[in-house]
Amino acid sequence: MGKTESHILSTAKELKQNRLFMPSGARANSSGNVNAFDRWLVHKLLENIGRPSLSFILWNNEEITSPDIKKPLARIRIKSRYALYKLMQNPELNFGDLYSIGIVDVEGDLPSSLVEIYRAIKSMGSKSILRYLKNPFRQRNSLNEARQNIHHHYDIGNEFYKVWLDSEAMQYTCAYYPDPAMTLEQAQVAKMHHVCRKLQLKPGQTVVEAGCGWGGLGLFMAREYGVNVKAYNISHEQIVYATHKAAVSNMTQQVEYIEDDYRNIKGEFDVFVSVGMLEHVGIDQYQELSDVIDRCLKPQGTGLIHSIGRNQPSLLNEWIATRIFPGACPPSISQMMMIFEPKGFSILDIENLRLHYAKTLEHWLARFDLSVEQFRKTYDEEFIRAWRLYLAGSIAAFTSGNMQLFQVVFTRPHKNDLPWSRAHLYKDHRHS
Amino acid sequence: MGKTESHILSTAKELKQNRLFMPSGARANSSGNVNAFDRWLVHKLLENIGRPSLSFILWNNEEITSPDIKKPLARIRIKSRYALYKLMQNPELNFGDLYSIGIVDVEGDLPSSLVEIYRAIKSMGSKSILRYLKNPFRQRNSLNEARQNIHHHYDIGNEFYKVWLDSEAMQYTCAYYPDPAMTLEQAQVAKMHHVCRKLQLKPGQTVVEAGCGWGGLGLFMAREYGVNVKAYNISHEQIVYATHKAAVSNMTQQVEYIEDDYRNIKGEFDVFVSVGMLEHVGIDQYQELSDVIDRCLKPQGTGLIHSIGRNQPSLLNEWIATRIFPGACPPSISQMMMIFEPKGFSILDIENLRLHYAKTLEHWLARFDLSVEQFRKTYDEEFIRAWRLYLAGSIAAFTSGNMQLFQVVFTRPHKNDLPWSRAHLYKDHRHS
Repeated sequence: MGKTESHILSTAKELKQNRLFMPSGARANSSGNVNAFDRWLVHKLLENIGRPSLSFILWNNEEITSPDIKKPLARIRIKSRYALYKLMQNPELNFGDLYSIGIVDVEGDLPSSLVEIYRAIKSMGSKSILRYLKNPFRQRNSLNEARQNIHHHYDIGNEFYKVWLDSEAMQYTCAYYPDPAMTLEQAQVAKMHHVCRKLQLKPGQTVVEAGCGWGGLGLFMAREYGVNVKAYNISHEQIVYATHKAAVSNMTQQVEYIEDDYRNIKGEFDVFVSVGMLEHVGIDQYQELSDVIDRCLKPQGTGLIHSIGRNQPSLLNEWIATRIFPGACPPSISQMMMIFEPKGFSILDIENLRLHYAKTLEHWLARFDLSVEQFRKTYDEEFIRAWRLYLAGSIAAFTSGNMQLFQVVFTRPHKNDLPWSRAHLYKDHRHS
Repeated sequence: MGKTESHILSTAKELKQNRLFMPSGARANSSGNVNAFDRWLVHKLLENIGRPSLSFILWNNEEITSPDIKKPLARIRIKSRYALYKLMQNPELNFGDLYSIGIVDVEGDLPSSLVEIYRAIKSMGSKSILRYLKNPFRQRNSLNEARQNIHHHYDIGNEFYKVWLDSEAMQYTCAYYPDPAMTLEQAQVAKMHHVCRKLQLKPGQTVVEAGCGWGGLGLFMAREYGVNVKAYNISHEQIVYATHKAAVSNMTQQVEYIEDDYRNIKGEFDVFVSVGMLEHVGIDQYQELSDVIDRCLKPQGTGLIHSIGRNQPSLLNEWIATRIFPGACPPSISQMMMIFEPKGFSILDIENLRLHYAKTLEHWLARFDLSVEQFRKTYDEEFIRAWRLYLAGSIAAFTSGNMQLFQVVFTRPHKNDLPWSRAHLYKDHRHS
């Protein structure tokens, strides 16, 4: 555990180092007067984020609401003038940091407060000042930088994720709830079946998985569908975990976990599958991903990419992109097509599972909240608040329609051995 | 019938006027020698189209096959030197014209011969000389030109289409064969249910249909799902037919057919549906189509576009684009996204029904072939051969993966009243 612990500490330290510069005394609540300029700033802030149905409570307990809002859905407490100035400067980035260190707080349900902010900003369209002019697709995803980016998020420590992910296969990707009353474990199994059925897996087939997380899907495909899997991932912690799990399951003959970048995939396979990796592949790397798929997919092969996406090319929330997922960029469908169209791959099926991700995240957040006391033994309050905000913010993003989840099934253009309908995806659901 | 007859004649005349200039005597079979230059041209032609497993038989009955082909799948007869020169000049455009007038012929099954040509050309990739550099998306689809383009194809006469389309709803679009043994009528009904289920139609909802053909789907939606339909089409013949059919079905309270361009759609609707129109909308008109949808779809509305498409932006076969469907351009998915992404519409589901269109066309061609004697009373041989080639060529295009059929379901981004799975599409199939 020594290694994991040190990872947790270094990542927590990174989080702090990256954070906005915090002058001494910034964490202290301001006391004393709120002046006319402070009030003007709060009104301006409400206006800039589309006048959500929220109020701001200042450090003297004064409450300010947009003139047209009668009963705010929640209250956001701004505990110091410093926090107010930082919010004005760059609300998208600094809200997360200020919330994490606790000098901004939300009184009321966190996910629904954030849904309301998304709704309000959306209603402004292009008038929102949050849409600064930047290069949205500048990412640093060279082999080396990709490794650092992934380390930042996934090597916090397996134990941390184990607490709130599903116990079945530890999947840190959108589950599938054909019945919204399912448990997280049932929905993650249903997701894996859904993926396997879309790929029409047959015993003996060879599968390559690009970005395999803790290896849950690879093991499942091998065990339940009798395929042979090679699964790639650049997170050391995850590969160690997955390899151990395959060994104790006596599945090492059928599943091999490889600590390497998807760009180094070698060999030819009947199936290419990637669940939750594309978000971390920069748009400018799509051409290379396309080459990889073209190189490794057999003529009669089938592929599936499952990824967070957008309705249109857009910036990822700046705080998430900076603090939580460096290098991440969920694509729109037209951007995803940059992987498929240049090579003439044929798209068979695209399904949007947006609300399934909101529900998955609700389950994750509920488990996270149940374990806060346990986390406090290892992590400081700032780390815990940052993670809560990230999970709640993601619920809000999927609920409000700001983020999408696309599953794309594709083949080479000439493959005619195809099912006549998608009915086979909906027969005999095995939910457990 | 006087009006319809004159339409048939004018369209047949147009077909001939557009055709390549034919010097006197060009139709006559050449007799006499085949020289070394002719043979070199035939070899060059075989090479230029990727060395398909076909042979060419020249006007002296000499047969030429690619050196590596042992048993050709079919024989293409070139009956004159003129035809050979024209084929060399522009095979994509001139093959159709030469076949139509009968100085090029195919001995063997026409669809499979064309599949083989598609396969061979595809295998060449970018080396094919058929991919000349042109502006592929230059189309003439102003309101006026669109009317002329549609008149060219759809106003040939209802009686002509009635012979080989389904008797149920006269649908000139891809049917849906969840069971490939279905009849054409069953599959067209299954298609309409599939579309209605994807749209989750509810009684009393308002539907606008852009490009309604002979009105079959509009009438079906109103009758089977209890919705109120406004259906737009610029083909006069089709609107007259549809309106008459609605009247004799006592459905004029629920379905209204409007002879107007989709760009003139007025009002707000729960549902936007368009089956088989997008192919005729130029890519440069997508922005306007996007505006139309944005204007007419209610906040909680759902939309569906069903269209022929491509795996990548490509030229439509030049003969089809020139002689059969002027102004047509089937889009790739990234091109289709130009309709949805600028407005932030959310894509819920894309299904590719490519092989269903091949099967639909096989049914159409079989019925067409059964009625050739009947057609000969009204149309000349050239018209009949051109139509046979177009149907067979389309079978080949869908079978070889050259063309796709996409059904795209979309909503506005904030709509959360969505089904938890697509299972409802696959329950209780009503096939008749």
